[in-house]
Amino acid sequence: MKLSSIFEHTNISCESDLEISGLNTLIDSSKNELTFLQNKKYLKDLKETKAGAVLVNEEFKNDVPDGCIAIVCDEPYIELAHISKLFAPEIIETSGDEAIVGDGSKVMPNVYLGFNSKIGKNCNIMAGAFIGDNVTIGDNTTIYPNVTVYRDCNIGNDCIIHAGTVIGSDGFGFANTKDGKYIKIYQNGNVEIGNDVEIGANCTIDRAVFKSTIIKDGARLDNLVHIGHNCIIGNGSILVSQVGLSGSTVLNEYVVMGGQSGTAGHLEIAPFTTIAARGGVTKNISEPKKSWAGFPLMDHREWLKLQGRVAKLLK
Amino acid sequence: MKLSSIFEHTNISCESDLEISGLNTLIDSSKNELTFLQNKKYLKDLKETKAGAVLVNEEFKNDVPDGCIAIVCDEPYIELAHISKLFAPEIIETSGDEAIVGDGSKVMPNVYLGFNSKIGKNCNIMAGAFIGDNVTIGDNTTIYPNVTVYRDCNIGNDCIIHAGTVIGSDGFGFANTKDGKYIKIYQNGNVEIGNDVEIGANCTIDRAVFKSTIIKDGARLDNLVHIGHNCIIGNGSILVSQVGLSGSTVLNEYVVMGGQSGTAGHLEIAPFTTIAARGGVTKNISEPKKSWAGFPLMDHREWLKLQGRVAKLLK
Amino acid sequence: MKLSSIFEHTNISCESDLEISGLNTLIDSSKNELTFLQNKKYLKDLKETKAGAVLVNEEFKNDVPDGCIAIVCDEPYIELAHISKLFAPEIIETSGDEAIVGDGSKVMPNVYLGFNSKIGKNCNIMAGAFIGDNVTIGDNTTIYPNVTVYRDCNIGNDCIIHAGTVIGSDGFGFANTKDGKYIKIYQNGNVEIGNDVEIGANCTIDRAVFKSTIIKDGARLDNLVHIGHNCIIGNGSILVSQVGLSGSTVLNEYVVMGGQSGTAGHLEIAPFTTIAARGGVTKNISEPKKSWAGFPLMDHREWLKLQGRVAKLLK
Repeated sequence: MKLSSIFEHTNISCESDLEISGLNTLIDSSKNELTFLQNKKYLKDLKETKAGAVLVNEEFKNDVPDGCIAIVCDEPYIELAHISKLFAPEIIETSGDEAIVGDGSKVMPNVYLGFNSKIGKNCNIMAGAFIGDNVTIGDNTTIYPNVTVYRDCNIGNDCIIHAGTVIGSDGFGFANTKDGKYIKIYQNGNVEIGNDVEIGANCTIDRAVFKSTIIKDGARLDNLVHIGHNCIIGNGSILVSQVGLSGSTVLNEYVVMGGQSGTAGHLEIAPFTTIAARGGVTKNISEPKKSWAGFPLMDHREWLKLQGRVAKLLK
Repeated sequence: MKLSSIFEHTNISCESDLEISGLNTLIDSSKNELTFLQNKKYLKDLKETKAGAVLVNEEFKNDVPDGCIAIVCDEPYIELAHISKLFAPEIIETSGDEAIVGDGSKVMPNVYLGFNSKIGKNCNIMAGAFIGDNVTIGDNTTIYPNVTVYRDCNIGNDCIIHAGTVIGSDGFGFANTKDGKYIKIYQNGNVEIGNDVEIGANCTIDRAVFKSTIIKDGARLDNLVHIGHNCIIGNGSILVSQVGLSGSTVLNEYVVMGGQSGTAGHLEIAPFTTIAARGGVTKNISEPKKSWAGFPLMDHREWLKLQGRVAKLLK
Repeated sequence: MKLSSIFEHTNISCESDLEISGLNTLIDSSKNELTFLQNKKYLKDLKETKAGAVLVNEEFKNDVPDGCIAIVCDEPYIELAHISKLFAPEIIETSGDEAIVGDGSKVMPNVYLGFNSKIGKNCNIMAGAFIGDNVTIGDNTTIYPNVTVYRDCNIGNDCIIHAGTVIGSDGFGFANTKDGKYIKIYQNGNVEIGNDVEIGANCTIDRAVFKSTIIKDGARLDNLVHIGHNCIIGNGSILVSQVGLSGSTVLNEYVVMGGQSGTAGHLEIAPFTTIAARGGVTKNISEPKKSWAGFPLMDHREWLKLQGRVAKLLK
């Protein structure tokens, strides 16, 4: 879509014919992408962006690097939300290539296979499963009944997705207007699941707003786990039931999160970290191989000691 | 149903021919409804009830207002539970008008549209969705795959319901008998969802025992959120993932509840209240625009300070 | 399967022709079952096992009782995991007897009824439900839309299973190799649900690794409840929404667990125990009829008092 067309029916004037393929963050944008500055703390990223164009307040116009078109507006995040709709694909495609199913795969009745979807060899796709448009599933993977895989998501080889799990639902994103409306930020990214991943029943894995929510090889998720948009789950990580990860949480390899634990968003957890059941992570954890507990989070042994001290208040 | 018929096969004698259309609370009942006094603290409501008849203990017989028939019994709540079954509609209707689907709406394969259901214009009803009998859905609404909407529930315009979500399941209600049985209180109410509401994946919104569980315009629910029966979610409220609201919780407009927070039942939260992640609300919040945290709940800044003080116990 | 065949393609040599029907624990195994010693603390059970054969480390070879064949290996738990796959039934059966549906039962469209499954009389099996192979459902039971019942599970009479609930998904079990791989322990047990049980929407009830996860008569589960593998839920127990039970938790009769409460695994809770909302149980509770709260768990009244004392730290 031409940059000028994006703003055609708005009160922002833009004459550029630059072809825009989508939206992205300041850091990840390439020259055919449009980005935005929402928060002053990302000013450094603005100065280094490779984006073709950027939505900015007047105030930061001069920080836009050469070769990047500044689109000056009052509310960049609101504009972004409106524009995200222009890049949203159809919810239900009505044409495309018929699904390809590999040798040895069993597809039960009442399964929906979307256009351009590909199922590998020796898979089980069980009744009631929904495989959206452009979804790719590898070999030897089992999709249990009533699983929903939204369009454009990919699942690797040797995976097991238990019943009722939802992969690729929209991340929780919207821009608040001054008069109390929420403008949906269309989640035009996807979910990428590696090989040898097992996901329990009734989990929810949200698709990314841009790019991908990623679950890497060998991860194990128990039941009723929530993964927010743009999370990255490292190789061999273990998430026990009812864990909830807010958006953009990064778990490095072999992180273990106990039952009902959770994280705030936009943080990173070092490899081989263990979070005890009910632990609530609100900051980055940079030292690997440690055990943590509590909310607020602390060293697991300290937490145990603290509970003893707290109990003494009764005496 | 005639009042006399309701008690026909019981050891309660009642000769009245009053036509009873259903059950309701003391406060909300009208003259063709039957109500009950379960708890002395509602005695004031009994005295003001507009109900046609009321189940009461002998003790409170004389508090029943003129024009309301007192049905005296030992265990009003148990009787109510038994009677609720008489007013429960069929789980699966076997006849009725065929569903009406508005112009521009796409209904995918493997969708079930119940009798007398109405889908507005330009909707997407995706594979595996169950739209129960007498359900109405407005215009421009998307129902993702494997969503279940129980009978008699209504959804407005411009809504998005993500995959696996259940709308209208029975509220958690039963009367305990002295010998340890639970008599189901049939949940004969419904769920009413306004316009411009987005509900995430694998949420559960229980139907009301009487009247409606209500989600008002502009509300946003993340994934795996539980809404108990008879809750009211105010306009523009935001419920982050894994929030749980017990029955009859009332959120006023623009309440924000952080991830994994929850409420006890039968309480009301003032407009523009923010509950931090994991906060547990057990009392009414009457002052608007405040932030709260913790369990037990306290002012958010106090909670932060308190955590610092608690941590000092380690020294 | 002959014991010798089990080890045919491994570097463990075993010549016995003993017929092995499956795997089981030290305590529960019978003479045609294979068991394992994973942890020294079960040494007493090893000495009393009735199993036909046992996987043990060299160190414990001499503790294996007469009549039980010792299979000596370096990593019994890893071997167990590999062997569990040999006993896993087909995920999708391709032949068997057609389902039997009792008189008066309604089976809606888009329902899948597996081979050898039996539905009793006067049941409602609603659209999108998946009833796996060899599943038995009693009389007067309602299965709401998009419920998944995995193969080999059984549900009694007069039960209600709300929409989206998953019964019989795999328990969360795997053996960790030294090089960071997780070998799945196939969950070859099932779920047994008694009579008069109501289970809310989008719950997950995992099947047992051996034998059965059991939900006894009269139990009531709210929405989004997680039951780990091999749990036993006693008669008349009540689990409020978002409760999570780790594997092998035993609730005796009439246990009440408040919303968002949880348990660690392998523990037992006495009859008529009440756990307040958010309570976290990490040890056995042996005294019946008490109320508990908090995490760590304590007497409910003590917990209330402690919260008062903690709050005083602010002064």
